[in-house]
Amino acid sequence: MKIGVNLSFAVKRWLDGPQLASIVRDRLGLQHVQYTWDLSDPWWPEERRDRIARSFARAFLEAGLVIESTFGGLASYTYNNLLAPTDDMRRVGYQHLERAIDMTSAMEVKAAGAPLGSFSYDDARSPARREELYRIALDLLGELARHARRRGLTTLLVEPTPLATEFPASPADGARLMEDLEGKTEVPVKLLVDWGHALYRPLFGEAGLEPWMEQCGQHIRAFHIQQTDGSLDCHWSFARDGLVTPRQLAEFWKKHRLADQTYFLEMVYPFEADDDFVLQDMVRSTQVVRQAA
Amino acid sequence: MKIGVNLSFAVKRWLDGPQLASIVRDRLGLQHVQYTWDLSDPWWPEERRDRIARSFARAFLEAGLVIESTFGGLASYTYNNLLAPTDDMRRVGYQHLERAIDMTSAMEVKAAGAPLGSFSYDDARSPARREELYRIALDLLGELARHARRRGLTTLLVEPTPLATEFPASPADGARLMEDLEGKTEVPVKLLVDWGHALYRPLFGEAGLEPWMEQCGQHIRAFHIQQTDGSLDCHWSFARDGLVTPRQLAEFWKKHRLADQTYFLEMVYPFEADDDFVLQDMVRSTQVVRQAA
Repeated sequence: MKIGVNLSFAVKRWLDGPQLASIVRDRLGLQHVQYTWDLSDPWWPEERRDRIARSFARAFLEAGLVIESTFGGLASYTYNNLLAPTDDMRRVGYQHLERAIDMTSAMEVKAAGAPLGSFSYDDARSPARREELYRIALDLLGELARHARRRGLTTLLVEPTPLATEFPASPADGARLMEDLEGKTEVPVKLLVDWGHALYRPLFGEAGLEPWMEQCGQHIRAFHIQQTDGSLDCHWSFARDGLVTPRQLAEFWKKHRLADQTYFLEMVYPFEADDDFVLQDMVRSTQVVRQAA
Repeated sequence: MKIGVNLSFAVKRWLDGPQLASIVRDRLGLQHVQYTWDLSDPWWPEERRDRIARSFARAFLEAGLVIESTFGGLASYTYNNLLAPTDDMRRVGYQHLERAIDMTSAMEVKAAGAPLGSFSYDDARSPARREELYRIALDLLGELARHARRRGLTTLLVEPTPLATEFPASPADGARLMEDLEGKTEVPVKLLVDWGHALYRPLFGEAGLEPWMEQCGQHIRAFHIQQTDGSLDCHWSFARDGLVTPRQLAEFWKKHRLADQTYFLEMVYPFEADDDFVLQDMVRSTQVVRQAA
């Protein structure tokens, strides 16, 4: 099993590159990293933004760590991005992602990703509008892939979310998106699948991860893993009990002959959680997963 | 009791101004509104941003509603803003708030506010660094107040948060900030106190709201109200049971002879909560509070 970590646990807490690199390498014992835009907002003015983002990238490189991708976090997910109801809102969503690609390029990281966007209440309930907005999003993704290539990236990632008012949500959505984009973008657009999203019972029942592998497994480039009870998008640590067992992660890895599709631990703690608790809990969470590797 | 609503419940769901105005007026039966920056990011390019923000403002005005203030939400709270560890990070925090003031001005709203910021892990544990960063934040608040006056705003608001790694957190912090700023800024900087934050037991035990009124009551311009069990910063609806009763809200209002210090319901739902549930729950939550008025 190739285990990595999404840096969301560090947001607001550990903002010094060398210190955070040391936490990842020496405390968590991991080498593969996914940087979150919650550490540096793609919207920040370029000069300061890139200086901040590069200070993380440089420290990680010097510590021998590999940042495989950068990814949208809480702040990015707060807005409707490419599926927003108005042209103005979609255009700012596009610019947000374009700027995230610029930041990723400044960090010399080769991939960037995020969820695609959210429909508004009315649009989500209109099949015709969903279709219209999906078509627009495909075009915008094409433009983004062109921009990504110009900036030296090699892959864009889309993360399905557990909301019927977003797209892609289901394995069928993911398969459709991959089919519609395959071979048509200047860099490949691939999927990052989140275990907690796939195990969200109100939307997917007990279906689990297998339908994802069956319907779009060949397009999945990475996973977010975390503990969940299936009732909400929990993003819990593996120090808690829940639907996911380390053994299950290991068997899934083996069964599907995964190799490079890193399992990124993605724990999201409440802002008010105690810093020292968060760090100890991340250490424990990583140990639990590694025991099964 | 003067009851209003923070628009956080609508984020990603109801993005059409007239529709959202109708929800607030006709479904919730409220007139006083606090707009959240999670509906339009202050970082968005001005032209589109202000067109989007004004479309909400105009619709609310036409529906006879009053937007009393605009306020930082989840996206804004994701970053360390004025208390960040490096000059680059603080400067982007400052620009974020400056742009929020510009957006507020474009909406012709007279007040804007947010939490002040967060210390990093190391800074939070160093009394000298906390003091140094606090002094810098006071200067930046002064600059922001000057900018606010130039843009036609009359008040800035700071919201204390329930984190020992942020400032202000306690009633004593709030009192100190008010004392250090009083009479020295071009528009007054005042407090917005959140009931859920004040009732957060890991930090404040059973102290409740009274210490806030005793130590800085004369500086409090508005409240966020919501249900909580005190174990986390819950932001629950009043349709749930918890530490706050409508009767308590009414008695507090009366005891302290409140008049204009609007109680803004601030419910924050998980992104994956069903839209129709959210709306029904907001209706119920508002009813519960209004019954005590």
